[in-house]
Amino acid sequence: MAVKLKEPAQLLPVPGIRLSAVSCGLYDTDRLDLALISFSRDAVCSAVLTNNAFCAAPVEVVRQHMQSNIPGFCLINAGNANAGTGDRGYRDALSLCDSLAEAANCSSTSILPFSTGVIGEYLPVRRIEEKIPDLYSRLSDDSWLECARAMMTTDTIPKGVSRQLFLNDEPVTITGIAKGSGMIRPDMATMLSFLATDASIDKSIINEILINTVNQSFNRICVDGDTSTNDACVLIASGESKSDRIDQLEGRESLKFQEALLAVCIELAQAIVRDGEGASKFITIEVESGRTSQECLGVAYSIATSPLVKTAFFASDPNWGRILAAAGRSGLSELDVSKISVYLDDIRVVDKGVRDPAYTEAAGQKVMDQEDIVVRINLARGDAKETIWTSDLSHEYVRINAEYRS
Amino acid sequence: MAVKLKEPAQLLPVPGIRLSAVSCGLYDTDRLDLALISFSRDAVCSAVLTNNAFCAAPVEVVRQHMQSNIPGFCLINAGNANAGTGDRGYRDALSLCDSLAEAANCSSTSILPFSTGVIGEYLPVRRIEEKIPDLYSRLSDDSWLECARAMMTTDTIPKGVSRQLFLNDEPVTITGIAKGSGMIRPDMATMLSFLATDASIDKSIINEILINTVNQSFNRICVDGDTSTNDACVLIASGESKSDRIDQLEGRESLKFQEALLAVCIELAQAIVRDGEGASKFITIEVESGRTSQECLGVAYSIATSPLVKTAFFASDPNWGRILAAAGRSGLSELDVSKISVYLDDIRVVDKGVRDPAYTEAAGQKVMDQEDIVVRINLARGDAKETIWTSDLSHEYVRINAEYRS
Repeated sequence: MAVKLKEPAQLLPVPGIRLSAVSCGLYDTDRLDLALISFSRDAVCSAVLTNNAFCAAPVEVVRQHMQSNIPGFCLINAGNANAGTGDRGYRDALSLCDSLAEAANCSSTSILPFSTGVIGEYLPVRRIEEKIPDLYSRLSDDSWLECARAMMTTDTIPKGVSRQLFLNDEPVTITGIAKGSGMIRPDMATMLSFLATDASIDKSIINEILINTVNQSFNRICVDGDTSTNDACVLIASGESKSDRIDQLEGRESLKFQEALLAVCIELAQAIVRDGEGASKFITIEVESGRTSQECLGVAYSIATSPLVKTAFFASDPNWGRILAAAGRSGLSELDVSKISVYLDDIRVVDKGVRDPAYTEAAGQKVMDQEDIVVRINLARGDAKETIWTSDLSHEYVRINAEYRS
Repeated sequence: MAVKLKEPAQLLPVPGIRLSAVSCGLYDTDRLDLALISFSRDAVCSAVLTNNAFCAAPVEVVRQHMQSNIPGFCLINAGNANAGTGDRGYRDALSLCDSLAEAANCSSTSILPFSTGVIGEYLPVRRIEEKIPDLYSRLSDDSWLECARAMMTTDTIPKGVSRQLFLNDEPVTITGIAKGSGMIRPDMATMLSFLATDASIDKSIINEILINTVNQSFNRICVDGDTSTNDACVLIASGESKSDRIDQLEGRESLKFQEALLAVCIELAQAIVRDGEGASKFITIEVESGRTSQECLGVAYSIATSPLVKTAFFASDPNWGRILAAAGRSGLSELDVSKISVYLDDIRVVDKGVRDPAYTEAAGQKVMDQEDIVVRINLARGDAKETIWTSDLSHEYVRINAEYRS
């Protein structure tokens, strides 16, 4: 049911990064469910993690391991989130790290574990550990798509994007994969994303680059307004490219790299929305001429999380009244409603706070019948502008989430 | 599809209050859609209105009329919200007031107009005005149920409650009616409620009494997290009872009255949730042992607005992981997850942050199979406690809101 989303045609290998994926039976069906990403010794790495107070056991382990050692591996399982599992869940996550450390002959603290799937069940540790030697032995340059597939939960399509660019005339590759479909909103909704590049990035700025990028991509999407316990986005820079080390946020080459990374992340973030649970529409919400970025985002999310707006989109109903009502409840102070305009694609629906006299239902209907729709709201009171992406609320969403786990 | 909700058996007349309802064809079907409440000359009146920035034209008129005159009438139509209609909508609302003022031979500013229904369409003013003389001539003591019926939009059952009590040994009646089903959340979600009593309440405290009561009733419910443009709750005290005037918030008789009024409002608020669009479950969420009221409400609404929690309830799935995840994203600082417990009715599901060893899925399932369910979360870090009421998210919700207006 994904909206205009296809399997990635080609995911480019990234020098210094090897991957593998196997099946260890965490699902009833025969599918990949365990993935490994290995990075070269000189790689630097940054991770943005969920800020849900009930974060999962592996997230705790990742936080600690990031502090104590230079990471060398990401170990990812689907089918079980290892969340709400307390001390035992924590020990289980460590146990997986120990197993991989033994197979890879490295320190356990150089391993970052990630889990996604059902909350509140204990991890079948032995079943996973049995597969770890096999998983380690299969590491190769070109298993990005298999890894993307192994992370999927309610995703219907594996998500991956590659870009190539030149920095100081040297070729550089960025490849990223992501999973996510429901429980999606900013602050790391139920998603995992692993981004890798052979560019060389200085440790001192890799966190800031990742945070800035995430804020403009994965933190600009919303499927259903829920945040999960397990979300993470990891950026690995192997440094194997011959291009100069990026050691500042400004500068032409640095900006070029960040732009390419952002393009990869926006494409992945949009893919998550396009594959949103039950999605039949992909909706871009642009709020412009606000006083601040924050108030633009407030209006945008108020619209994006409104079940009434979302069901209207599902019904292809140009119900602009619901859009106005949702915008109105976002808590804007001193809003002069009589200045607002609202557009569906290029059709002006609301002008100066009321229905545009030139607007016809037929024109609105034509836009709403599309799969991709842009809603633009002009607040007419400043220079700030923000864009987010969301999906509709369909019968299929309810079906998926009522049936999942049962 | 309402959850354990029946039509009110008897709504008691309130001395000093007369009502009527007629049909003026605002719907395709033959139904009541225009209501009038008239109150005696000495009545005092308070109104809590939506704080949506896009408030409807009639809400603006009510704000002004409340300031300029002592209200004598509430005029209510369903089928059209007269919202997003700009200056013309404002003039239309005034025009209805003028028509009624002529019929009733009173000042136009003593009339409070209320509209509910579709947003963004102009009011068919003439069709309504033609019926106003008839509406006025039909005023009687015992038309509460007809009025409740005339306000309904997607409501499936008219909502009304009556209580009688004695103040200073004199009988006092409180009767209230309400409408609301979707677009429901605090801060006056899409609902209208009119409460009347023959008790005598001093002007100086009636606002505070109403605000306190609304905060503990209509502001404690959530169906889908949307706020509408038209919400209002009005309290009218005719003063025709022989009981002493209530002129302070404290004192035995005053507290007795407030307690009865709160009971009426809680029953009406719960009726709105029980008749929530597509509701198949009525869920009470209690958050206890929080540091502050605010953080308890934060956790409660985070759970109540989570589509994942709501679809799990629809599926009768004791998916406590989703409850923990929703609680976790509410932004509690310094939460010690290892102290949390979660109950479904009296069954402890989570103890010290993990699944209670004694918990069985069968026990959880038994609770979830009920229509009325209590979710209780103990944060183990303070003395504050809050309770809210919500419903589930069903296929029927999507159907209703995808089809409404089309």
